[in-house]
Amino acid sequence: MTKDPRLAQSAFLLACRRLPVPHTPVWFMRQAGRSLPEYRKVRAGVGMLESCFRPDLVTEITLQPVRRYGVDAAIFFSDIVVPLKAIGVDLDIKPGVGPVVAHPIRAVADLAVLRDLEPTDVAPIAEAVRTLVGELGATPLIGFAGAPFTLASYLVEGGPSRNHERTKALMYGDPELWHALLGRLASITSAFLRVQVASGASAVQLFDSWAGALSEADYRRYVLPHSTAVLDSVADLGVPRIHFGVGTSELLPAMLEAGADVVGVDFRTPLRTAAARLGADVALQGNLDPAVLFAPPGAVRTQVDAVLESARGLSGHVFNLGHGVLPETDPDVLAAVVEQVHAATAR
Amino acid sequence: MTKDPRLAQSAFLLACRRLPVPHTPVWFMRQAGRSLPEYRKVRAGVGMLESCFRPDLVTEITLQPVRRYGVDAAIFFSDIVVPLKAIGVDLDIKPGVGPVVAHPIRAVADLAVLRDLEPTDVAPIAEAVRTLVGELGATPLIGFAGAPFTLASYLVEGGPSRNHERTKALMYGDPELWHALLGRLASITSAFLRVQVASGASAVQLFDSWAGALSEADYRRYVLPHSTAVLDSVADLGVPRIHFGVGTSELLPAMLEAGADVVGVDFRTPLRTAAARLGADVALQGNLDPAVLFAPPGAVRTQVDAVLESARGLSGHVFNLGHGVLPETDPDVLAAVVEQVHAATAR
Repeated sequence: MTKDPRLAQSAFLLACRRLPVPHTPVWFMRQAGRSLPEYRKVRAGVGMLESCFRPDLVTEITLQPVRRYGVDAAIFFSDIVVPLKAIGVDLDIKPGVGPVVAHPIRAVADLAVLRDLEPTDVAPIAEAVRTLVGELGATPLIGFAGAPFTLASYLVEGGPSRNHERTKALMYGDPELWHALLGRLASITSAFLRVQVASGASAVQLFDSWAGALSEADYRRYVLPHSTAVLDSVADLGVPRIHFGVGTSELLPAMLEAGADVVGVDFRTPLRTAAARLGADVALQGNLDPAVLFAPPGAVRTQVDAVLESARGLSGHVFNLGHGVLPETDPDVLAAVVEQVHAATAR
Repeated sequence: MTKDPRLAQSAFLLACRRLPVPHTPVWFMRQAGRSLPEYRKVRAGVGMLESCFRPDLVTEITLQPVRRYGVDAAIFFSDIVVPLKAIGVDLDIKPGVGPVVAHPIRAVADLAVLRDLEPTDVAPIAEAVRTLVGELGATPLIGFAGAPFTLASYLVEGGPSRNHERTKALMYGDPELWHALLGRLASITSAFLRVQVASGASAVQLFDSWAGALSEADYRRYVLPHSTAVLDSVADLGVPRIHFGVGTSELLPAMLEAGADVVGVDFRTPLRTAAARLGADVALQGNLDPAVLFAPPGAVRTQVDAVLESARGLSGHVFNLGHGVLPETDPDVLAAVVEQVHAATAR
C-alpha cells in the first residue's frame, strides 16, 4: 500500500515524532460522533454496533469532523468492543448505557470465547480504513483499540461500571485467571491494531479509559505487562503509538514505560507537570478540560491559551482535550478551538 | 456540655493529633447506611431526607455500625445537602439518583435562596448529635459537611453530574458569581459544622467529593479560598479537621494548606507517597480500595496489610477506605477488616 507522500509533512505525525512542526496539531478524542448533527443524521435508525461494521458509515462519520473542523488527524470511528464482537462475543451497545455483555467472564471456562482475531473477522473495518486513507489524502488516520484492562472491565462486569468491583475482585482474588484474561485481550487488541495499520492507519492510540481506577502498584502488577505486549506488538510497524487513560496522574510514568511514543494526559495534570515526570523523550497529547467548552467564548480562549502556555518548550505537543468530546458540545466551539490553536502556534 | 473523659484516650482522636495510639484506629466512610440490613429495616418507608431530620433515626443509624463493627469512631448519619434543605432550598434526594435541586443556580438572583444557616434551622440535627454523644460514651463522633465546590456542583447542575459542565462553565465564565456562590456555601457549611461541634462532635470531616474534577491550578484559584474559610472557621473549636476528596492526587498539598489536621487519601495514591508530598505535620486517613472488599478473604487480608505497610512510620494514621463503602458490600467483610487492623497494630 502506497501512502500519500504529503503525510511526511503532517503536523500531527511530526509532533508525535518530536520533530519541528508548522503549527501545533490538534484533534479531539470523540471528534467523530455524537456531538455532530450530521452524525446523528447518518446514524438515524442504525444501531451503534451495526454502524461500526458498515464501511460506508465508518468512512462518512470519520470524515465529518475533518471536513468541519480542519483537524490535523482523523480518528477511525468505532467502539472499543468492536474486536470482541468480531470474534463472536455476545454483546451489544445499548443507547444511554454503553456496551452490555450477555455472559460476563468470571471463570476459566469463560475464556474460551476469546479466540484469536483473524484479519477476516474485521474485513469491513479494514475496508473502511483503506477507503478512508484514500479520501483523507494528506490528513493522517489514527487507528485505535481499547486496552486490555478497560476491555476486561466490560467483560467481567457485564457492562459499564463505576467502581469495577467484580473486575478488582477477580484481579486480586484469582491472579492466574486475571493474567490469562488480559493475555487473551492483549493478543486480540494487537491483531486488531495491526490490521488497521496494515490497511493504512498512520498512528495508533491505545485507550485505557478505566486505568485511573488503579493505584500505580496494581497497574504495574496487573495491567502494565499486557498493555506493554500490545504496544510492543506494533513497534515494528513504525507508526507513532499514543497511550491514553483518564485520572492517570499517578500512572503516567508506567504508561510511558508500556511503550508509548506519545502519552495522552487528562485535564487534571498540567502538561508541564507531566513533562517533568516523563522527561523529554516523549511527546504529550492534551489536555483541555472538555467541560471548558461550555463556558463563554472568552473563557474558552483563555483556557486554550493556558494549555498552550503549559506546553511551551515541549519537544512534541499534540493539542487535544483531556477526555472525549461531551455529547452536548457545540461544534462551533470546537471549530474555534482549532482555529485558535493553529493561529497561536503558526511558525 | 461535659465530654466523656474517656475520649481523651480515643485511638482515633490520638491518631488525628499524631500522638501515640494503642492501635491504629479504623472507621469507614459511609459505614452508616445502605450496606447494612439493620439500616434498610429502619429506613423502610422513610425518605432519605426525612430520615436525616429525625433525631431518633439519625441516632439509631449512626450507632448501628459502631455496634456491629467496633469501629473507633462514629460518623453522623446525614447527607451533604441537609444544611441546604434546612435553609429552605427546594431539593430532594431521589433513590438511585441522588440530590435533585428544583431550581438550579445560574444567576446572581438565584443566590438569594442561600441565606445564612441559624442553629435553629438544624435543631433536629443538634438534638441527634447530643443524644448520640451520650450513647457513644468513649467512642468519638465525627461531624461532617460537604465542601463548597461539591455543594456548588449539585446546585448549579441541578443534580449529580459526571462532567460538571455547567459548574465549570459558571466557574470559568463568571468568576464573580462563582466566588459569591462559594462564599455563601462556605458560610452555611461553617455554621453547620459549628452546630455539630457545639452539640458534642469530637472531630469534623469536610467532604469534597468532586474536587478531583479540577486541576490543581483551578482548585487553588476557584475553590481553596472557600474550603480554607470553612476549616478556619472551626479552628478555634479545638477538634481535628479531616479534609477528603476523591481523585485528588494532584490536590493533596492544597487540601492540606486549606487547614486540615488530617488529609483523607483516596485509594489511587499510596499513603507513603502522600506522606512524602505532605510532610510529617499531618495525619493521613485511608485508603483501602472499597472494591477490594469484593475479593476472597485472603486477598482482602493481603490488601489491608499493604495499606498498613504503606502507613508504617507515619506520625498519625487513621485506617479507612479510600472512598465510601459500596452498597453491595458484605458487612462481615468490614467486620473482619476492623479485627485485622486492630490485631495487626496492637501495641
